[in-house]
Amino acid sequence: MEQWFDTAPDRQGSDSVKWDRYRQRDVIPMWVADMDFAVAPVIDQAIRQRVEHGVYGYAAVPDTLKQACVEWLARRWGWSISPSWLVALPAVVPGINFAVRALAEPGALAVPCPIYPPIAQVAANLQLPMQRFSVQPGQGWDLIELERACQQGAKTLLLSVPHNPIGQRFSHQQRQALAQLCQRYRVQVVSDEIHGDLILDGHGHQPLASLSEDMAQRTLTLISAGKSFNLAGLPFAFAVVANAQWRQRLKRQLLGHAPTHNVLAMVATEAAWRQGEPWLEALLQYLKGNLALIEARLAALDRVVLHRPDATTLAWIDCRQLGLDDVKGHFEQYGVGFSDGAEFGQAGFVRLNFACPRARLTHGLDRFRQAVLAV
Amino acid sequence: MEQWFDTAPDRQGSDSVKWDRYRQRDVIPMWVADMDFAVAPVIDQAIRQRVEHGVYGYAAVPDTLKQACVEWLARRWGWSISPSWLVALPAVVPGINFAVRALAEPGALAVPCPIYPPIAQVAANLQLPMQRFSVQPGQGWDLIELERACQQGAKTLLLSVPHNPIGQRFSHQQRQALAQLCQRYRVQVVSDEIHGDLILDGHGHQPLASLSEDMAQRTLTLISAGKSFNLAGLPFAFAVVANAQWRQRLKRQLLGHAPTHNVLAMVATEAAWRQGEPWLEALLQYLKGNLALIEARLAALDRVVLHRPDATTLAWIDCRQLGLDDVKGHFEQYGVGFSDGAEFGQAGFVRLNFACPRARLTHGLDRFRQAVLAV
Repeated sequence: MEQWFDTAPDRQGSDSVKWDRYRQRDVIPMWVADMDFAVAPVIDQAIRQRVEHGVYGYAAVPDTLKQACVEWLARRWGWSISPSWLVALPAVVPGINFAVRALAEPGALAVPCPIYPPIAQVAANLQLPMQRFSVQPGQGWDLIELERACQQGAKTLLLSVPHNPIGQRFSHQQRQALAQLCQRYRVQVVSDEIHGDLILDGHGHQPLASLSEDMAQRTLTLISAGKSFNLAGLPFAFAVVANAQWRQRLKRQLLGHAPTHNVLAMVATEAAWRQGEPWLEALLQYLKGNLALIEARLAALDRVVLHRPDATTLAWIDCRQLGLDDVKGHFEQYGVGFSDGAEFGQAGFVRLNFACPRARLTHGLDRFRQAVLAV
Repeated sequence: MEQWFDTAPDRQGSDSVKWDRYRQRDVIPMWVADMDFAVAPVIDQAIRQRVEHGVYGYAAVPDTLKQACVEWLARRWGWSISPSWLVALPAVVPGINFAVRALAEPGALAVPCPIYPPIAQVAANLQLPMQRFSVQPGQGWDLIELERACQQGAKTLLLSVPHNPIGQRFSHQQRQALAQLCQRYRVQVVSDEIHGDLILDGHGHQPLASLSEDMAQRTLTLISAGKSFNLAGLPFAFAVVANAQWRQRLKRQLLGHAPTHNVLAMVATEAAWRQGEPWLEALLQYLKGNLALIEARLAALDRVVLHRPDATTLAWIDCRQLGLDDVKGHFEQYGVGFSDGAEFGQAGFVRLNFACPRARLTHGLDRFRQAVLAV
């Protein structure tokens, strides 16, 4: 399988958001969080089979898709849910926004920092106050800061678990402490767990909502095959909502605001959950190899610091010691395109997406090294 | 080509909303407004070609898609627009709701009656007052009632042009009169023109926004290849918004609430607009044949009245003289599944969707006849 990941299709001229940014420029795009790999052969086959049918009228969300989801979560995450908890969504980010809209009293939002931009944007979208608390590689959430936010009126907590951009899971102990805080301050939790299938340290993902009955009731979890199976361009997601009232209110919010569902996105997602496990395991092996390469290369460089991610395809690299004003622009000059930490609320960092063939990653890391040494 | 439309794929068990309603029942589904036909071969080829590529990361809205749209509207509707007026949407219905949200002062909504349910639902979705005015086959909008609604504070007019469910275009004269009303009362217009490509009387569709510079500024038009090319299961749409302020406000409303775009939906839409014209012409011929059959059959029946639709794939049949309490249920008992007029605000009518192979339509009309004679 390693060879399969080595030979990814050329994405230039394929209307890829990632590749279009550097059209006509010799810059290797390693920014937005999709993968340069083709979909798993089982997904490809499922899409082709549906294309054979050829009629694309209004598509129902099949019970078999919900069942595939339930089984996936049971098998991979050890999470037992009812299919009735699932609310179909066009994608995770709209799900987050509508989930907050659906709350009777969203109050102020508590949001970790750094965080991927669409989560930081929710408060502005909905004209709600926002309070930030820190999240750090190795340390996880700063629960003292979070408690302060709760004391100051935060009622809804938006999380990314595992965390984008820092690429971290959170220890069981820390998740328990967070759950206690949420209970004490009656905080509602919207947890984006789209990276839950991309665990690189050999452990399974444990959803926040599965910690306790109390957490199950106060948490709305967003899941998708989008990251782990590279389906951002065929988006589909589910909200998992044990709380019946929140679920009904979410469905009401979605009325008229969500498109009817894309049949090929659903076909792809169902194939991923039903048959994609061997491919995902091979992907995780490959990603670990990529990560080991990054670690080895970065260890040889001064002034840049990587705390090893234990999940996601993202390396969150601390370049503050380089003292650059425009860190993204500097690396682009040397031919690599990262996400700029400033967009995540932490200037001086870059986010390197390593979901690409190893040869390309090696090439990118060569350029990264030159860029660092040139400062 | 007629033969091509005669041999549509079997949609049973394909997660079709239309067919799933009558799973395990001998009822011919002729309700929800999609077609039983496969997509045009040029669309099928475009999808297959993109599937060959195999990478489904984040997809940009290609400039070529916007250009194809601009050219389609110029060629088919005689409407000259700038690509900068286009706002990409996941589907038409969310576009309507977000378009109204984007207004600084939506006021009360004026909505024709009967109307397809998602438009009647907008006021409830957004918690706005609503005023209805009549629309009738042959007569068009009741502009006296509309003026009264304007006098009573309606500030936003929601339209379906051509009209779903009555299947009517509106005369140039009537559109002019409506435009004058809108100008006089400073009414903003959201015009769903998704059926604009399905004109059956040989005339072209003229968008409301193209009537005058004033209408261009006060109208937001929703367009899609979804109806005419049967892509409800691969949804994609554009809002055409000449008014720069409304356009910007719409984009702001969509932030965080719309999914990233589905690459295969965009590929299908671009192929439709770029290469689908001959197929569409053949479809229109076939639909005219189906409509002639319906007219002939209904003319032989007392107590049911059809005012010939001049657009859409929908026959709006007045069954009030049958005096049935449950008109939809009655026809289902005889093996045909229509949309119930009550859902559109006009009890006693049914909406028959004739976008199906002629043999199936014939079969459905046989059952319709039996059902009528049995009363």
